[in-house]
Amino acid sequence: MSPKITTELLKQLRQVMKSPKYVQEPVQAYIVPSGDAHQSEYIAPCDCRRAFISGFDGSAGTAIVTDQHAAMWTDGRYFLQAAHQMDNNWTLMKMGLKDTPTQEDWLVSVLPEGSKVGVDPFIIPADQWKRMSKALRSAGHDLVPVKDNLIDTIWTDCPQRPCKPLITLDLSYTGVSWKDKIAALRSKMAERKVMWFVVTALDEVAWLFNLRGSDVEYNPVFFAYAVIGMNTIRLFIDGDRMMDPAVREHLQLDSTLEPEFKIQVVPYGSILSELQAVGAGLSPKDKVWLSDKASYALTEAIPKAYRYLTPYTPICIAKAVKNASETEGMRRAHIKDAVALCELFHWLEKEVVPKGTVTEIIAADKAEEFRSQQKDFVELSFATISSTGPNGAIIHYKPVPETNRTLSVNEIYLLDSGAQYKDGTTDVTRTMHFGTPSAYEKECFTYVLKGHIAVSAAIFPNGTKGHLLDSFARSALWDCGLDYLHGTGHGVGSFLNVHEGPCGISYKTFADEPLEAGMIVSDEPGYYEDGSFGIRIENVVLVIPAETKYNFKNRGSLTFEPLTLVPIQTKMIDVNLLTQKERNWVDNYHQKCREVVGAELERQGRHEALQWLIRETEPLLRAQ
Amino acid sequence: MSPKITTELLKQLRQVMKSPKYVQEPVQAYIVPSGDAHQSEYIAPCDCRRAFISGFDGSAGTAIVTDQHAAMWTDGRYFLQAAHQMDNNWTLMKMGLKDTPTQEDWLVSVLPEGSKVGVDPFIIPADQWKRMSKALRSAGHDLVPVKDNLIDTIWTDCPQRPCKPLITLDLSYTGVSWKDKIAALRSKMAERKVMWFVVTALDEVAWLFNLRGSDVEYNPVFFAYAVIGMNTIRLFIDGDRMMDPAVREHLQLDSTLEPEFKIQVVPYGSILSELQAVGAGLSPKDKVWLSDKASYALTEAIPKAYRYLTPYTPICIAKAVKNASETEGMRRAHIKDAVALCELFHWLEKEVVPKGTVTEIIAADKAEEFRSQQKDFVELSFATISSTGPNGAIIHYKPVPETNRTLSVNEIYLLDSGAQYKDGTTDVTRTMHFGTPSAYEKECFTYVLKGHIAVSAAIFPNGTKGHLLDSFARSALWDCGLDYLHGTGHGVGSFLNVHEGPCGISYKTFADEPLEAGMIVSDEPGYYEDGSFGIRIENVVLVIPAETKYNFKNRGSLTFEPLTLVPIQTKMIDVNLLTQKERNWVDNYHQKCREVVGAELERQGRHEALQWLIRETEPLLRAQ
Repeated sequence: MSPKITTELLKQLRQVMKSPKYVQEPVQAYIVPSGDAHQSEYIAPCDCRRAFISGFDGSAGTAIVTDQHAAMWTDGRYFLQAAHQMDNNWTLMKMGLKDTPTQEDWLVSVLPEGSKVGVDPFIIPADQWKRMSKALRSAGHDLVPVKDNLIDTIWTDCPQRPCKPLITLDLSYTGVSWKDKIAALRSKMAERKVMWFVVTALDEVAWLFNLRGSDVEYNPVFFAYAVIGMNTIRLFIDGDRMMDPAVREHLQLDSTLEPEFKIQVVPYGSILSELQAVGAGLSPKDKVWLSDKASYALTEAIPKAYRYLTPYTPICIAKAVKNASETEGMRRAHIKDAVALCELFHWLEKEVVPKGTVTEIIAADKAEEFRSQQKDFVELSFATISSTGPNGAIIHYKPVPETNRTLSVNEIYLLDSGAQYKDGTTDVTRTMHFGTPSAYEKECFTYVLKGHIAVSAAIFPNGTKGHLLDSFARSALWDCGLDYLHGTGHGVGSFLNVHEGPCGISYKTFADEPLEAGMIVSDEPGYYEDGSFGIRIENVVLVIPAETKYNFKNRGSLTFEPLTLVPIQTKMIDVNLLTQKERNWVDNYHQKCREVVGAELERQGRHEALQWLIRETEPLLRAQ
Repeated sequence: MSPKITTELLKQLRQVMKSPKYVQEPVQAYIVPSGDAHQSEYIAPCDCRRAFISGFDGSAGTAIVTDQHAAMWTDGRYFLQAAHQMDNNWTLMKMGLKDTPTQEDWLVSVLPEGSKVGVDPFIIPADQWKRMSKALRSAGHDLVPVKDNLIDTIWTDCPQRPCKPLITLDLSYTGVSWKDKIAALRSKMAERKVMWFVVTALDEVAWLFNLRGSDVEYNPVFFAYAVIGMNTIRLFIDGDRMMDPAVREHLQLDSTLEPEFKIQVVPYGSILSELQAVGAGLSPKDKVWLSDKASYALTEAIPKAYRYLTPYTPICIAKAVKNASETEGMRRAHIKDAVALCELFHWLEKEVVPKGTVTEIIAADKAEEFRSQQKDFVELSFATISSTGPNGAIIHYKPVPETNRTLSVNEIYLLDSGAQYKDGTTDVTRTMHFGTPSAYEKECFTYVLKGHIAVSAAIFPNGTKGHLLDSFARSALWDCGLDYLHGTGHGVGSFLNVHEGPCGISYKTFADEPLEAGMIVSDEPGYYEDGSFGIRIENVVLVIPAETKYNFKNRGSLTFEPLTLVPIQTKMIDVNLLTQKERNWVDNYHQKCREVVGAELERQGRHEALQWLIRETEPLLRAQ
């Protein structure tokens, strides 16, 4: 892939940074964050402002443009990709490395005295605003809100904001009605003596109302806000999608309802003025609950004394703990997903080995094709990472024609992919070799597998935060001087975002909420050699109660149950490096894959894939 | 031990809380923190105000007294002890348990509207003030500084502040002269563009000037502050100890010196006024560097715009990384300490088994006696925890006549003890059985040992923070539903405080600095059953570079070398629960104990103890 040439764009941006038409005073720097007005990780094309200005389209990154400089901060997953996609106008700031300055420190080092730094107040989260503003102020600069987004002013062919039809989810999928969710939210609000709750995250709006959308690729969400009072419900949403009879019936818009469950539908764009009106009408002691990651603009709409900000909202926390219907849905989705992948891997073996005509893109498309044959398939849950050889070392690689490699019997193939089904969201990575892996490749794969098992089989007390498990995933790699530069796991939504809070497994996070039975996270250690190969083994796992011999202080223990049931290629395993306990884990896991997915393959009449599954799930010692 | 009766004292305190003689306005609550004006963990008798008012004399705890309530916050180490030492006037707030309110939340729940909460501004750290003050203000209350310490006003027989002679340490102990330390500090100050550095922690003053004292039991420190400018050195210290010719020569007080190394000696009590004078004389852009844990009073002496606060000072960070002289000193100290403990355990076996006349206090005294026979012994490094049977479950137990149990062949004995030698500080815990341990006791001991080994043998990349290793110590316990309610390790000073920052191994700490070669920490997992027994296995370990097969991103790896060389009782080990790697670790460790400590026992002519050591260091399979 060749970098985007941004010389002209940067020139235009620097002009509008001085233009009285858009800024009250000239700004010496302009920050372009990654997110949208909902602080989404995955964003609609109209919100891809950072990619537009820089060329770098990874999922995380912040651009800052000054009169002289243009710099991009991103993390270890994207160092290679960002370096490839950006031209010489840009400096890559590798987050997590010791010598990389923070955005604040860098700004202070390059700005002339008394500078103004502009940012779109709808895009920057309030907590980031606060930190950035404080750091700049203490160095004599000012962070200022710029009402018109300056990227939008120079983005002449900016696409329209999407406004697609909604999907309603009935109780068999959600387990709890939207009215019961609102009632539960109100009881949390009452506990904290809060009068209003502002729902700003798109997946929280979708979860609360048991609705889904397709405004954002991969995330089944729709552009909306909600403001929940103790007796009122306001849903801010555009378009004629509220005319859909199914949606009207689902939300009981035309029924006689208890007044406290009557939904008022309000235009999306009126959120700020409506919230300002709420703010103006508050009595002393009234509180308004917002996420501390809500936008600066919305947060400022509520006078400071009335704000109640928390890092995780009660919806975020409730959403993370899946109920029985959601868990069963996730199980079903993962079985269907495994069927599709068994078909794919069987097909790859048939095609790659003798013919050598399968490219990364063809493999990714084929994976999608097999998934789309499954019941309740909606779309992919993220851009498929289909990467062979050196491309596998680009952690969030997505094949494009310029980089597209052909799978061969000489290279490791890494496939990280997943789908949205109406009953659940999947995310699975398998790393395979279609020829004979080298001893070194097997060694590295086996360390990664040991880490994967160490997390998956870990038993830990109730109340343990996920970040305390992260080192388990690295221990075998560390022993040999190896490591990987990403976290080990993220929360996974239920037919919702593939990345969701408030739990996860990462050395980088300390503010995660404790793991609870019913939470669902990924377990995905890896190992990457720049220019050579990438290895990752990822299952989605469900937190379940663990039976233990003792029970200290009656706290109870937890462990994980893998929901993902796709064989882990035994050819890649150096069995001598595994303990007996680890070998048993692999054999038991494969036994379960064979039983559960085998039955579904049988039911679907997919006999060749079933034969492949049976072969790939042979016990380790027999497989060698 | 019977609780302290505090009814009358609380009555008096509540009176002075309303007395215009001491407070400008009545305060509805008064906070009594644990520390002294230097935020020390170990404090002089005159600073034991929280113990005076409540009876609870553990090393950590905060008392809050309101008109109606008296409450004590402490952590898992002290739940039992605090419950025993406090009368019914007090409510114990068990920190770390889910339902325990924070001090702020509790205050908000009990205070009448618009209350004033008083605290001594010299005792409360600035960061705690800030947090507490903000929380109280947002609930309509005020945190107010009360100049006279209210406890002191009712403490009629309060002891005098100690002012004992100083010890000078030459280069053979410190490796670096105080002038070189000042020069290194000034170069850190120049890097951060800071004009002044205020040394508030007692161990930082002692380390900086290569001086030690004995104002505080167990910690070889003296009451002093220092203010370091780019060209001036001011040492705030009382008494005639500056008249000591050895001290005068060490500090070159009477020599012609470069002016920037000329030390001005100033009275201890003038720190606030001198610092206010510094604060008043600052030019724009001047900065004054303080720990964010310095007292509120001293922090406020510097106008906010001029403060440069960091969680760890450059002295704290430099002090943590031991140089070759310090490391060699620590090795020597640990060998001497091991000699004393071999003598002790040999003596205990001789006395306990046939006679049954050794109490916890006798054993503790005997340990001190053996240690005091060693060269350069100064004092103990903390109050010896000598505990048998159920007393072992009181994590920071100290035997007193009321609780003193006799060691027997039927109970587990836990000894956590250490000493200050002029060449180093020790801290070691061994858990032993003089009869036949039960299968359950052995099982628990072995899980703790597995945790100890998991940390001690861990290999991890440069840049790893200690808290990422904490779960390794718990994994074997977690597997069986067990755990312990304290951190796994703390930094250890070099003939300085037995607990020091900025590194450690604990799930509770996220702000620790990365481990570096030369840092020294303890490794001390445990398991405790209330009413039955306590198990802990503690070594002091040195961070050293690790040789690894590979070297990812050229980062290099680290591991630990045990400095403590005292046998771990093999009788307590269920060898079947150990992996081969763990068995090898134990055998190699014991081999090293035998060689290194054996040679010293031989040299000191301690032949019986040598025989004991040889018996206790037999390889595991032969020992069984």
